[in-house]
Amino acid sequence: MQTLVERLYPICRSLTGDGVRETLSILGEHVPLEVREVATGTKVLDWTVPREWNIRDAWIEGPDGKRVVDFRDSNLHVVGYSVPVRARMPLSQLREHLHTLPERRDWIPYRTSYWSETWGFCLPHARLEALEEGEYEVCIDATLEDGHLTYGELLLEGESESEILISTHVCHPSLANDNLSGLAVATFLAARLAERRRRHSLRFLFVPGIIGPITWLALNERRLGRIRHGLVLALLGGPGGFVYKRSRRGDAQVDRASAHVLGTEGELRDFEPWGYDERQYCSPGFDLPMGRLTRAPHGEFPEYHTSADDLSLVPPDRLVEALFKVEEILDVLDRDGAYVNQSPKGEPQLGRRGLFGSLGGATTGRERERAMLWVLSLCDGSHTLLDVAERSGLPFADVRGAADSLAEHGLLVEAGDR
Amino acid sequence: MQTLVERLYPICRSLTGDGVRETLSILGEHVPLEVREVATGTKVLDWTVPREWNIRDAWIEGPDGKRVVDFRDSNLHVVGYSVPVRARMPLSQLREHLHTLPERRDWIPYRTSYWSETWGFCLPHARLEALEEGEYEVCIDATLEDGHLTYGELLLEGESESEILISTHVCHPSLANDNLSGLAVATFLAARLAERRRRHSLRFLFVPGIIGPITWLALNERRLGRIRHGLVLALLGGPGGFVYKRSRRGDAQVDRASAHVLGTEGELRDFEPWGYDERQYCSPGFDLPMGRLTRAPHGEFPEYHTSADDLSLVPPDRLVEALFKVEEILDVLDRDGAYVNQSPKGEPQLGRRGLFGSLGGATTGRERERAMLWVLSLCDGSHTLLDVAERSGLPFADVRGAADSLAEHGLLVEAGDR
Amino acid sequence: MQTLVERLYPICRSLTGDGVRETLSILGEHVPLEVREVATGTKVLDWTVPREWNIRDAWIEGPDGKRVVDFRDSNLHVVGYSVPVRARMPLSQLREHLHTLPERRDWIPYRTSYWSETWGFCLPHARLEALEEGEYEVCIDATLEDGHLTYGELLLEGESESEILISTHVCHPSLANDNLSGLAVATFLAARLAERRRRHSLRFLFVPGIIGPITWLALNERRLGRIRHGLVLALLGGPGGFVYKRSRRGDAQVDRASAHVLGTEGELRDFEPWGYDERQYCSPGFDLPMGRLTRAPHGEFPEYHTSADDLSLVPPDRLVEALFKVEEILDVLDRDGAYVNQSPKGEPQLGRRGLFGSLGGATTGRERERAMLWVLSLCDGSHTLLDVAERSGLPFADVRGAADSLAEHGLLVEAGDR
Repeated sequence: MQTLVERLYPICRSLTGDGVRETLSILGEHVPLEVREVATGTKVLDWTVPREWNIRDAWIEGPDGKRVVDFRDSNLHVVGYSVPVRARMPLSQLREHLHTLPERRDWIPYRTSYWSETWGFCLPHARLEALEEGEYEVCIDATLEDGHLTYGELLLEGESESEILISTHVCHPSLANDNLSGLAVATFLAARLAERRRRHSLRFLFVPGIIGPITWLALNERRLGRIRHGLVLALLGGPGGFVYKRSRRGDAQVDRASAHVLGTEGELRDFEPWGYDERQYCSPGFDLPMGRLTRAPHGEFPEYHTSADDLSLVPPDRLVEALFKVEEILDVLDRDGAYVNQSPKGEPQLGRRGLFGSLGGATTGRERERAMLWVLSLCDGSHTLLDVAERSGLPFADVRGAADSLAEHGLLVEAGDR
Repeated sequence: MQTLVERLYPICRSLTGDGVRETLSILGEHVPLEVREVATGTKVLDWTVPREWNIRDAWIEGPDGKRVVDFRDSNLHVVGYSVPVRARMPLSQLREHLHTLPERRDWIPYRTSYWSETWGFCLPHARLEALEEGEYEVCIDATLEDGHLTYGELLLEGESESEILISTHVCHPSLANDNLSGLAVATFLAARLAERRRRHSLRFLFVPGIIGPITWLALNERRLGRIRHGLVLALLGGPGGFVYKRSRRGDAQVDRASAHVLGTEGELRDFEPWGYDERQYCSPGFDLPMGRLTRAPHGEFPEYHTSADDLSLVPPDRLVEALFKVEEILDVLDRDGAYVNQSPKGEPQLGRRGLFGSLGGATTGRERERAMLWVLSLCDGSHTLLDVAERSGLPFADVRGAADSLAEHGLLVEAGDR
Repeated sequence: MQTLVERLYPICRSLTGDGVRETLSILGEHVPLEVREVATGTKVLDWTVPREWNIRDAWIEGPDGKRVVDFRDSNLHVVGYSVPVRARMPLSQLREHLHTLPERRDWIPYRTSYWSETWGFCLPHARLEALEEGEYEVCIDATLEDGHLTYGELLLEGESESEILISTHVCHPSLANDNLSGLAVATFLAARLAERRRRHSLRFLFVPGIIGPITWLALNERRLGRIRHGLVLALLGGPGGFVYKRSRRGDAQVDRASAHVLGTEGELRDFEPWGYDERQYCSPGFDLPMGRLTRAPHGEFPEYHTSADDLSLVPPDRLVEALFKVEEILDVLDRDGAYVNQSPKGEPQLGRRGLFGSLGGATTGRERERAMLWVLSLCDGSHTLLDVAERSGLPFADVRGAADSLAEHGLLVEAGDR
């Protein structure tokens, strides 16, 4: 994942354009991604697919002819979706197009203007203060023309058509945690899970923020009934422990599975209608059972949306930890189920079946027996294994293992279809 | 309000009688109060309207002929509803009719005997201890005769017949916080709201405790279905922050509105079947959706029901604060409603409608946008604006404003009748 | 109870056999217990009644011919249900049959092997360490033969056929807290309650653990519908405050009654599927409304299942306290009921009926009036007196007393059958 993140980091991505295409092409080397192109002007829900933006170069030259800002140093220097410009103007006029972070004098902010035609540059506040009065020349050699919105999609088929949807945003330029971390985790997750048997199909989306999920939702509205669970992944390499944001419903299976897997070390938050693309998936007209997993969320770590969100912010061990955590959540979602105790009157005699220690009187070393007793006690058809794990405080994997042992001995059967 | 309280303070009010009539007449100078008279002996629910009590004078003369207690000093000196008496008796016999507060040696307690025929005097404990043995002469020049129970009623008509009922007790003599504070706040509330457009009609009751609401409920039983919300107001000028007591139902709209308006600075208490006239309105046969707003409740401040509950206990700024707080609660009750997002699939494009800032990437200064997103997210017809305020933690007024903006742009419509 | 415990202490009880018979015979001197015998081989639910075990003697002789372990010193020395053995063997081989507690060097552990044929001895770890190498002679003069499982049952008939079931285990040898404490409390409870009028019938079971309730449940399956409430009693004389374990349902009447009676001094725990015989009564196929009352539960005090659980662990005052606590819980279960306020519109005039103090204005000394107001407020047919006690925080007995007063005055009637 570290190599992938390093390779993607320099690319200038935006809502649309060749940066996204190049990114998806690199991801496609790891997984068989399908790349979709949707034409400018296509009506998608309340929105319209915008014109495509591409940029070749941009700079500001000072009165002495020296470049004081250069796109080649950092693609954050240009406000995303800036219209082309080539002009001379005094500093006073130029200032209206310059964005800085006064409280972080050496960092370049990340700004965009997708839906309002303008242009601008972002730079360190220290550099702005050093600019001398005089005539400046600015150049943004960009195109904003009819073209396409590009996104990536991947379906890993499971035993059933029921889907788990994984979505991550692909539209940010050289920002490492936001969101090369999400791209790397989702890509490696897809690569690893491609091999495994699963009940659910897994659908991965690599989409530009807001307009991406809106486009996908508009194009796939009829198939949304298949989505049983979903996760938006972002900001998985940065500071802090895991933060799970519940679906709008608040009690979806993915909410419970994530809460169980994160346990007391993770932070659980209720849904709120801003954030990442859960805003669209969980809008009231769709209300999909999708949560969001991040570490410290947007706006809650100082490097957020600045040039300080660089490669140093995503240590590989943190990406790996995130990958395993997502796998564990998906495992609960895929392997949970309702079962029925076949010997519900009194305890079945587990000792006779070799499932119970023979020496009575001692009190220790009986965790496996306890997991079986919990399964037998709660599995009356109205509780799932996740219910058992939640109620007993045992890890889902132990409960699942106990259920498998009991099923082998005919003491447990699955409760109809899920 | 201060002037009104000062003017009402000296009047000797009781369950019935001319003190109540004089009080209502003064209130009638501020609002068009209708004064009702119900004859002694009228059956009202499980009760009977009692005889009317009026008092002209009362005193105790000591063995030396000097007055040791004089009604003209304080109307608290006479037990309310004392039967007339003119007699001589030794101190030992008189003592059985004297009430004091040993733990507050200089205060006169407030006592009544509405439903049991007796007479008595209240005096400072210090004065009782100074009484010398000997023959005393007592006089209570009162009448307890067939007459009427008197109360005041005022209806401010709104757009609908649905009513909010405001009730406050009018039966206490010279006690300032209990309840000239409630009379003043209710009167000025009526005067201020008379001018405003409202959906709900507002009904104000100025009634003697217990028998007052019982009489009103008995006479208006068929019309109670109109009462959608209600508040008992009392003790609003005294010490402490606001204390809201929930309705018997515990989840009435007024319970939620009051909790929202008081926020963390107010104290919320569950219903209990004693207190003020919520006892009658919330009796199980009526179970009206009425709560109670006070500051420190009955029995929870030392001056309660003593001569120390005087004008110094009701600073005008505390009355004003209470008035505004009640208005804010009524505003939520009147302006709440269920709405339906007309663009529920994905977020509508607010920027195109001028409702959203155009520059992306920054994280601050977006409270108004957040209020709109909350309204859009929750308003699916099953949530009201108060739900949105509760869930989002935003003030109701901000949520209401966001809803108005969205409605102007056709993004929100009201969900049928309420 | 102390005398009873002292008399029962030396008897060697087990799942079956003459020790149980002798124990039940002694209990039968206090209450008219019926003793049931169920033949070996009888199929009971998923189990089979085992062979009957009786033991006459057992010992280990060392290389020098001296007895190093002697059953006559303590019946804990022999693993329960050991098969007969008479053999010579070196210490190394003998060790596999010896059980000790290395962390409690002077205590003998209690061990059983009911369902797997083997033999063994239990001894202090210090004594094990002192054994010299050499040839040992072992003898367990026991029989494991077809016979019967024995248990005791007692029914105290009430006004109705609805039953409260009290169950306690009778299968442990010389262990005082576990469970002579339970036997003593249950026996004296039955003796005391035999005299009193009750609505519910009371059924007491004195049964060996696990196989006892399984046998009783199998034999009485058709009559289980009569059981409205139940308690498993055990460990009532040992250390610690009361610990109530909820039924599997978690909201049974006995769960609420016990929580109310224990109040803040008791500890409440959710059901878990191990412990005592609640495991069987609350298995999902029966799911009886039965909880469990103990002090420090199994495994949570150091003397548990060791020779240190001796008579010193069950001081008589602790047994008496437990007896009264159980009676209080049963009293709530038996005397609770739903009532209907017959004057629900406004408060009824209690003063006219002599139920209310006549002097108004004071705030103290009105607990009895408050209990009546709570009953009148909540008793609308959908709340029981226990609801009133829970909601008001008043003791059940006070609420019950208030209800009785109101009923005498015709203000309250019972709400149909319970």
